Amino acid sequence: MKRTSRDIRTANRYEVLRRIIAGNPTSRQELAAATGLSLATVATLVGELLDLRMITEVGFEDSEGGRPRGLVGVNPTGGALIGVDVAETYVHAELFDLALNVVARAEVDMEPGESRPEQVVGHVAAAVGAVAARAGVEAARVLGVGVSVPGQVDRDTGVAEYAPNWNWHDVPLLGLLAEHITHPLYLDNPLRACTVAELWFGAARGRGDAVVVNLGTGVGAGLALGGGLHRGVSNSAGEWGHTTLVLDGRLCHCGNHGCVETYVGAPGIMQNLRELSPGSRLLHPGDQTATIDALAHAVAEGDPVALKVVQETARYLGAGVADLINLLNPEVVVLSSWVASRLGEPLLAEVRRAVTRHALRRPLAATEIVLSPIPTDPVSLGAATFALEGALRSAGHRTRSAGPARSRTAPPS
Amino acid sequence: MKRTSRDIRTANRYEVLRRIIAGNPTSRQELAAATGLSLATVATLVGELLDLRMITEVGFEDSEGGRPRGLVGVNPTGGALIGVDVAETYVHAELFDLALNVVARAEVDMEPGESRPEQVVGHVAAAVGAVAARAGVEAARVLGVGVSVPGQVDRDTGVAEYAPNWNWHDVPLLGLLAEHITHPLYLDNPLRACTVAELWFGAARGRGDAVVVNLGTGVGAGLALGGGLHRGVSNSAGEWGHTTLVLDGRLCHCGNHGCVETYVGAPGIMQNLRELSPGSRLLHPGDQTATIDALAHAVAEGDPVALKVVQETARYLGAGVADLINLLNPEVVVLSSWVASRLGEPLLAEVRRAVTRHALRRPLAATEIVLSPIPTDPVSLGAATFALEGALRSAGHRTRSAGPARSRTAPPS
Repeated sequence: MKRTSRDIRTANRYEVLRRIIAGNPTSRQELAAATGLSLATVATLVGELLDLRMITEVGFEDSEGGRPRGLVGVNPTGGALIGVDVAETYVHAELFDLALNVVARAEVDMEPGESRPEQVVGHVAAAVGAVAARAGVEAARVLGVGVSVPGQVDRDTGVAEYAPNWNWHDVPLLGLLAEHITHPLYLDNPLRACTVAELWFGAARGRGDAVVVNLGTGVGAGLALGGGLHRGVSNSAGEWGHTTLVLDGRLCHCGNHGCVETYVGAPGIMQNLRELSPGSRLLHPGDQTATIDALAHAVAEGDPVALKVVQETARYLGAGVADLINLLNPEVVVLSSWVASRLGEPLLAEVRRAVTRHALRRPLAATEIVLSPIPTDPVSLGAATFALEGALRSAGHRTRSAGPARSRTAPPS
Repeated sequence: MKRTSRDIRTANRYEVLRRIIAGNPTSRQELAAATGLSLATVATLVGELLDLRMITEVGFEDSEGGRPRGLVGVNPTGGALIGVDVAETYVHAELFDLALNVVARAEVDMEPGESRPEQVVGHVAAAVGAVAARAGVEAARVLGVGVSVPGQVDRDTGVAEYAPNWNWHDVPLLGLLAEHITHPLYLDNPLRACTVAELWFGAARGRGDAVVVNLGTGVGAGLALGGGLHRGVSNSAGEWGHTTLVLDGRLCHCGNHGCVETYVGAPGIMQNLRELSPGSRLLHPGDQTATIDALAHAVAEGDPVALKVVQETARYLGAGVADLINLLNPEVVVLSSWVASRLGEPLLAEVRRAVTRHALRRPLAATEIVLSPIPTDPVSLGAATFALEGALRSAGHRTRSAGPARSRTAPPS
């Protein structure tokens, strides 16, 4: 819980690099205005990032008669980051430059029987190797590899504590991966990856408090509070999918009844469709993706059953999002993940209507509800961002020459 | 959202004073161990608090053969703080020493017709004058007055934005109070006052993340995250009472249906009783306090109807508390306010049982659920704490001699 001066220095370094990536190029003066930090602090942080070769001086801008201002931008060749999205059915790796542009992609399909830890590790190692080869990047330039795996993950110990769909319990995944991958490794889960992607590059950037609502097979709410990810005391915050919306409602696989996830996750939406129109041609039993796609197409064509399903889903989702707004008073709520992106604007419009019926007037007036603006896979982008954050953190140790030894050995909070 | 180095210095100063109050007396070495700060930082902060006369050197402790360690403790005569709890039916003021012991109390009853702003202001001014006179404290020693009023409050502008029971809209309360009270004034609401009281002096002290569940006529959840109060983007976070627990359930005065408050606030508990036993002798129509007291006594006597009402209330409350645990992954959940204190251990035991049925295993294992340990009025204690925080913040400005002018004029984040 304690924030040390090193924490604040790291957070400020994140913030400055975030703004440089956003403004690319930008001046120290603009960075000071955007971050609220003093010009002297910004100049120090920019100097550190220049020393790390993460950014470069890229010229000057005219400042209306005054002294021309130096511009800094991301150094595209200053390093590479790899983000890996491990899902139930695929392993998706992307290699990014330091502006977090995708340089190369690799995807490996996973068959249902291939979910033993050593099999998954093999797929991840193959995907990481393939993407580095495809990009033609030397190993030394890869600053880190972020890996997102489903379920409960302890990022500090590198253990995948629980992945229900694979029946994984306390798998020492980071150790297994390190036998194949020599770059610094960072393990986390898709909910937190999507949230950190929004924080750095999406709708939560520069916002005080944001909630990233993930709508996929599972459902969660990543919490970006005070400019950082809220992880909770045992790193499991965000399990909004398992909050009660309908007391004694639908049975959830968690054992509880009436969880948000049972109404607005992909299987829940299929159930909404089944209850409204049991024999609907839109229903593809056993195939969530096909059903959601069919719904999206039918909505675009004005199909009344499809519209009703979206309205009914939004009725539940709107009540749940209103709960988040009333409880947390965020500046923005972002709808993310594949179900949100496929149902898109029609879902967003219905959700906004439903939220208005449920939320309190004052926090509602302070909140914007948007679809994720991230055009690529937010999970691999977020996983790469964990690697970028890790590189910025550890660079602080290596490059700092001043300061007492005590602060270097203090445990991270 | 940005945290500046001044924010962190203020937060560290809060933390050190909190630990001195808790340990009273304690050594710099113990403070460093308890806070995770370096001994050098602790020594600096202790020096500032000594300069402010908030603490004093109180002797030495034997350190087993080593050099004796200097002990510091709160300076009881270093200043006084006043906290005022303005409720619908009373104004309650308390004057505290710097260890936050109650030195004097004053209470004024308010009649139903006395809720015009100038009438409330008159009562507050009278209570503040009475408590200062009773304590025999010179005006110069009062460091500040914290005032808690119900409803939506903007502490920065000092405006009571909305108080439904008084039909107040955008009342410039701080300005009105300042015409009668010359001490520095701090305005906030009871939910946040209770939360900051737990953070400084109660069950949230030294915890990473805590949720303070307020059970009174209204219901809320104060969020103490990362060692500080989470206020949200427009200072309205914590409206957990108006999150949906039963979709399309009981009508709430907010206009929504199925809000947590309609099941576990005092009127909701009366409704639970009415539904279980319409003609119960425990029911005092129109009198919440008498009904809750009657319930508490009947539970103590093993009355089956009263036990059933507590179980039914805990069924709702447990589901709602489980939602907070799943979403936020706190280290502790504190049940506070008058309904929680009157129903006490029997309610707590049933809530723990119900939470176990609803919460996910991992976050549940990381969370403790307790009754508030604060023996006095937590609202006036919290209001006085806002005044203490204000004094510590502004003292930072006045006593700092070094540092660039820029950081002194930076806006607080």
